[in-house]
Amino acid sequence: MTLGIFLASLLAAGCMQPQNQQEIPESKSPAATDPLPSWNDGEAKKSIIDFVTKSVTEGGPAFIPIPDRIATFDNDGTLWAEQPMYFQFLFAVDRIREMAPQHPEWKTKQPFKALLEGDMKTVLAGGEKALLEIVMTTHAGMTTEAFEKTVKDWMATATHPKTGKHYNEMIYRPMVELLHYLRDNQYKTFIVSGGGIDFMRPWVQQAYGIPPDQVVGSSGKVKYDTTDGKPVLIKLPELNFIDDKAGKPAGIHQYIGIRPVFAAGNSDGDYEMLQWTTLAGGYPRFGLLVHHTDSVREYAYDRQSHIGKLEKGLDDAQKNHWHVVDMKNDWKAVFIK
Amino acid sequence: MTLGIFLASLLAAGCMQPQNQQEIPESKSPAATDPLPSWNDGEAKKSIIDFVTKSVTEGGPAFIPIPDRIATFDNDGTLWAEQPMYFQFLFAVDRIREMAPQHPEWKTKQPFKALLEGDMKTVLAGGEKALLEIVMTTHAGMTTEAFEKTVKDWMATATHPKTGKHYNEMIYRPMVELLHYLRDNQYKTFIVSGGGIDFMRPWVQQAYGIPPDQVVGSSGKVKYDTTDGKPVLIKLPELNFIDDKAGKPAGIHQYIGIRPVFAAGNSDGDYEMLQWTTLAGGYPRFGLLVHHTDSVREYAYDRQSHIGKLEKGLDDAQKNHWHVVDMKNDWKAVFIK
Repeated sequence: MTLGIFLASLLAAGCMQPQNQQEIPESKSPAATDPLPSWNDGEAKKSIIDFVTKSVTEGGPAFIPIPDRIATFDNDGTLWAEQPMYFQFLFAVDRIREMAPQHPEWKTKQPFKALLEGDMKTVLAGGEKALLEIVMTTHAGMTTEAFEKTVKDWMATATHPKTGKHYNEMIYRPMVELLHYLRDNQYKTFIVSGGGIDFMRPWVQQAYGIPPDQVVGSSGKVKYDTTDGKPVLIKLPELNFIDDKAGKPAGIHQYIGIRPVFAAGNSDGDYEMLQWTTLAGGYPRFGLLVHHTDSVREYAYDRQSHIGKLEKGLDDAQKNHWHVVDMKNDWKAVFIK
Repeated sequence: MTLGIFLASLLAAGCMQPQNQQEIPESKSPAATDPLPSWNDGEAKKSIIDFVTKSVTEGGPAFIPIPDRIATFDNDGTLWAEQPMYFQFLFAVDRIREMAPQHPEWKTKQPFKALLEGDMKTVLAGGEKALLEIVMTTHAGMTTEAFEKTVKDWMATATHPKTGKHYNEMIYRPMVELLHYLRDNQYKTFIVSGGGIDFMRPWVQQAYGIPPDQVVGSSGKVKYDTTDGKPVLIKLPELNFIDDKAGKPAGIHQYIGIRPVFAAGNSDGDYEMLQWTTLAGGYPRFGLLVHHTDSVREYAYDRQSHIGKLEKGLDDAQKNHWHVVDMKNDWKAVFIK
């Protein structure tokens, strides 16, 4: 997640008004008769099932051998919601509030003073320097194990400012079904997100059935240390890798090492991942864009949004044979519960 | 692989005299009755089987849940041979020879002139700058796909200067059995090597049954490019990550995200990985060091070797409860064929 994205997320905060979601009983795997029960019948659902069915039909012209059945998914806006701002930034804000009693100096020190007073205008006036300070204060300076515990605790207790749901209840049921469906057909599913790798790993196994080693994301550097006799890794306030835009194909190469045949995203930050996945030739390939069109059940945004801006992807979807999922019309349900 | 390691590999070249290996018929998986048929009965074999058996005994005190059954293996000297110099450096030397006709200027330009004349003394006189030039000339400036093809072609044709074997025939049968045995018990097996990630991925699936996304290694940066309309990744002459010594726990965290319960290495470059794996508490944990003691079937080296130096690991093995495998006495066979 770039600083620019953080900045944009703050600018966009509060611009949209989501409704509370209907409660839908959870089902852990798709029904045997319909692999995608939360998808309405339509072009998107049909295209997915056609692609997957042909890819596992041995001897057919569109067969894909199992080792090459690699599917990559963006996270924010593709597997879970991202409004009114990236949930990882809400985590950072909550952390600052929680840490404040141990930092009396923040009462007079910017950007912390403004953040604690809810004065986002002043925070933003501090520019990237202020945002970097917030990120590094909350994401570095502790062991990897301590950070993991912090994320788990937050996920178990924090709630979304508008829906009141826990954040891991705001994952998209149709996409969870799609992950299950792909894995049932021997696809290996990966997250390839601009979000922090250490922020995602503690909860994605439970949420998506994706193990920690199949998560690609942005990261800071870590330092190995044994000075107290116990080996630890310390999270350093230094960027290691930004897994966004052209960083996504690079991240896929460095972490996965195989070009995917299936990729799903929702914003122009996913454009290069979809290019890399679908314009490769060889096997048939599938590109999917989740289009946020549902202002009632979720949010409606695309070209004008500061978060999850989708413009170039919409312009080029037809040319590139990418499948645009219309959230309002293609999904029977939105959230997992 | 650090430049220091490359330097050391050159210094050590030709210091040891291996014998030709006996041919042993290949078996793809261990016999049902004995999971490690190429291991002699002894402390090492018994310890491995005890550990694995207890780790999968549900309800037992040493049970390890499947998601935490993470096993990491060094490559050079642990899964395949590394003498008289790292095979990846032999690849680089072969590449320089192959590229020479397109580079007439190398006839007079160091370090290429000396390398092509087999004059390693002069190459080494050029110091790290010369070695870096050799590495970057052979590992950067092409697409990731072109590099992958080069590695595959080399692996299919090149032979070891002393044994005459293909390099992927110099993988250790007992270790391949161990990988199978662990996977048969729902362990996820990873390579964590100082070697280049792009050099390993094209052949490790076939050699070890380890897929490309379960390889952690050193890497250079890559750049996404679509200038000719086709998306490619260009390998840049710039280091991205060195996966050696304290870099191994860092690499395990960044790429895998779970602390292993089983780690195997052979040199002091693996010391921190074994520390990180075994000194964590919680579950029982297993550290293994392959000790090269077999001057007849392979090589004998440890404290004095410039390649695969093993000194600190031997000194601290007992204290840390690491299991030292005596290649000469513990292994019935060495190479896969």
